[in-house]
Amino acid sequence: MQVLAIIAEYNPFHHGHRYLIEAAQKKQNFDGIICVMSPDFVQRGEAALCSKWARTQMALRGGVDLLIALPFVYAVRSAYYFARGAMEIIAQCGVASHLAFGSESGDLKQLQYLAQIITEEPEKYKELIKKHLTQGLSFPAARARALHNYLKSGDKEMVSLLEEPNNILALEYLRAIYELGLPIQAISIKRKGSGYHDSKLSQVSSATAIRHALLNSMPLDRIAPSLPQYSWEILKREIALGQAPINSALLETAILSRLRTMSRQEIKQIYEVSEGLENRIYEAAHSCGTLEGLRQYIKSRRYNMTRINRILLYALLGITQSMIAELDQQGPSYIHVLGFSPRGRIILQQMKNRCRIPVFSRGKDLKRFYEENRGYPPGDMLEVDIKAADIYRLFMPNPQARAGGREFTTSPFRI
Amino acid sequence: MQVLAIIAEYNPFHHGHRYLIEAAQKKQNFDGIICVMSPDFVQRGEAALCSKWARTQMALRGGVDLLIALPFVYAVRSAYYFARGAMEIIAQCGVASHLAFGSESGDLKQLQYLAQIITEEPEKYKELIKKHLTQGLSFPAARARALHNYLKSGDKEMVSLLEEPNNILALEYLRAIYELGLPIQAISIKRKGSGYHDSKLSQVSSATAIRHALLNSMPLDRIAPSLPQYSWEILKREIALGQAPINSALLETAILSRLRTMSRQEIKQIYEVSEGLENRIYEAAHSCGTLEGLRQYIKSRRYNMTRINRILLYALLGITQSMIAELDQQGPSYIHVLGFSPRGRIILQQMKNRCRIPVFSRGKDLKRFYEENRGYPPGDMLEVDIKAADIYRLFMPNPQARAGGREFTTSPFRI
Repeated sequence: MQVLAIIAEYNPFHHGHRYLIEAAQKKQNFDGIICVMSPDFVQRGEAALCSKWARTQMALRGGVDLLIALPFVYAVRSAYYFARGAMEIIAQCGVASHLAFGSESGDLKQLQYLAQIITEEPEKYKELIKKHLTQGLSFPAARARALHNYLKSGDKEMVSLLEEPNNILALEYLRAIYELGLPIQAISIKRKGSGYHDSKLSQVSSATAIRHALLNSMPLDRIAPSLPQYSWEILKREIALGQAPINSALLETAILSRLRTMSRQEIKQIYEVSEGLENRIYEAAHSCGTLEGLRQYIKSRRYNMTRINRILLYALLGITQSMIAELDQQGPSYIHVLGFSPRGRIILQQMKNRCRIPVFSRGKDLKRFYEENRGYPPGDMLEVDIKAADIYRLFMPNPQARAGGREFTTSPFRI
Repeated sequence: MQVLAIIAEYNPFHHGHRYLIEAAQKKQNFDGIICVMSPDFVQRGEAALCSKWARTQMALRGGVDLLIALPFVYAVRSAYYFARGAMEIIAQCGVASHLAFGSESGDLKQLQYLAQIITEEPEKYKELIKKHLTQGLSFPAARARALHNYLKSGDKEMVSLLEEPNNILALEYLRAIYELGLPIQAISIKRKGSGYHDSKLSQVSSATAIRHALLNSMPLDRIAPSLPQYSWEILKREIALGQAPINSALLETAILSRLRTMSRQEIKQIYEVSEGLENRIYEAAHSCGTLEGLRQYIKSRRYNMTRINRILLYALLGITQSMIAELDQQGPSYIHVLGFSPRGRIILQQMKNRCRIPVFSRGKDLKRFYEENRGYPPGDMLEVDIKAADIYRLFMPNPQARAGGREFTTSPFRI
């Protein structure tokens, strides 16, 4: 059986996402497509526009056969851990033969060549990275510059690849396949339409542009052409139910008040806080009155906005360095299935036979596992997921929709 | 020197507050009036309508000569600890000869008789309280019923006194004077005008009615007659600056998200959580989407709304049972002066000579004390105060007004 894996956020599921699926299917007729999807919070440290349940429905309609939740501790992490965690989940599933990803480049050979360098880390390359880091650059910037200096002059243009976020992720997927020794073949699909960060709407709009339009109250009808009909209808339903759009600004007083009650020592223990950043965060928390002001205060050449947003979310959820260290060592401890098609159901059966960690498709089974394992390492990863999901619901526009514990009562979606 | 002490919240300072001062002055011409005032959060577990700095200005204009902040750990407590903490502060000041308080009754003799019973706790009375508590009554209700059963039939009408909140506080002031053996004479002034809980505006409106009108966007001009001119002008200025009115509802997502990230064990350690209440709070936090829903879910015969509001505030600020136990054992560790008149300045000088704990009138002295003592018991009381003040500012309507650390930069107000 040939099964294609995809790693995605689908925030929301748009034409570009559908294009990736269709383009991969054109290369080879797969027996099914599984997707590991970010749940309620996404890599940039923001709340997703609508819940993982709604986004699961969109993806099923868009051609994905089986949706699996990417645990929070992978979903809201830097590119390396995001990609690594997702690939570990895919490896655990034991059913995927291929991995498809979009990239600005589309040139798999080039990406594989770069992936090899950053994996093997030749001595000279390592020294260059260290040098640029001590100059105060962020890790991605230091790495791009180190590669530029390291490569032979003819290859230098490759480095510009690393300025594009999808290429960076693609590189990390390839590295994870390489490092974990997975028998998975990569398929790189060249992205088309708007760039990742483009905020204008177009026929093939980026998810960023769609979110931007929604949060700035653009008339709903004008957003419609940017999404497949089914995606659009699901999103419209969620908005009508007061379950979307989720606006990260609603986290404002929650985050600000959380930080103001924390000591420098407590802030220092938050994951990704290092090198005295706790002092800057502490001072920002006590002098800024808005989330945006806080972000700007903390931001520096070394700490970009994405990293700061993630840190703020870690602070809100109480995610510490030691917690992450333990969870990283342990690896994925469960698979949470969010939805499946008839083809997905067959893959799911195969997964259950092959997977060495528990696979949950029913909420009540997940709940039992949670209650039996909470406080112990295997349950900690889920505990973070449950906490994050419960906090996420608090930010739904409709107060009636804010009850927690949905993970324990929601059955996977089927089409 | 004859100095009158008053314990108040002034939330906001209204005609009734001025009446108390004038009536007491009429009984005896005092050399000055000191007031121990709740800072930013009040006894019911709510944020004050406007900051302690604004309320200090109102009180100075209303005839108070010296304003002292009641530490948070006394201000946001049940009647016994509120009264006890305030009387301990007054005792530390060492300058007050009298204490005046408003009460619905006005009959000092009756109040003193009841205070004696609840202080000496005759065996039979104690048994009656225990009995009513095991029936599931709140402490104030159990006490009122126990007293009713204990008193001889002719005195029974006295017990109805205990249904009035100002009488309850008056009783606790008298008890504290009695227990601490303070050489302070009590003056009971009969309240006039609206009852404490009345929510309609009138010429002598209660603070409750004024807050209610403001938070429900009643046109400002209609509220004006309920306040002395100066109070009204200060309040209007605060509103114009976006520093009022503070609405406790703004604490909503902050409190809900804080509770959803806490374990049952952590909730159990919050001050005033006992007898399995942690389970009810935990469940409420995970099933309710609004603060009001949460309160209603937790409320029971045993736990009234005031107590629940206080618990929610303790949770937000991380105030635990062990923290309070330690602070209670230690007693007040500093005096924070918020403002004074020329007469107050003379009293302040005398206080500084007599007081065995540090008296701070300048923010920078308070800051030095804080930095030298944080993490040790004498600094813990102040640490809670600083944290509470910093959180309070986050709920100001104007983001520019939300910076923390004002306690360290604000000088006392002088008139």
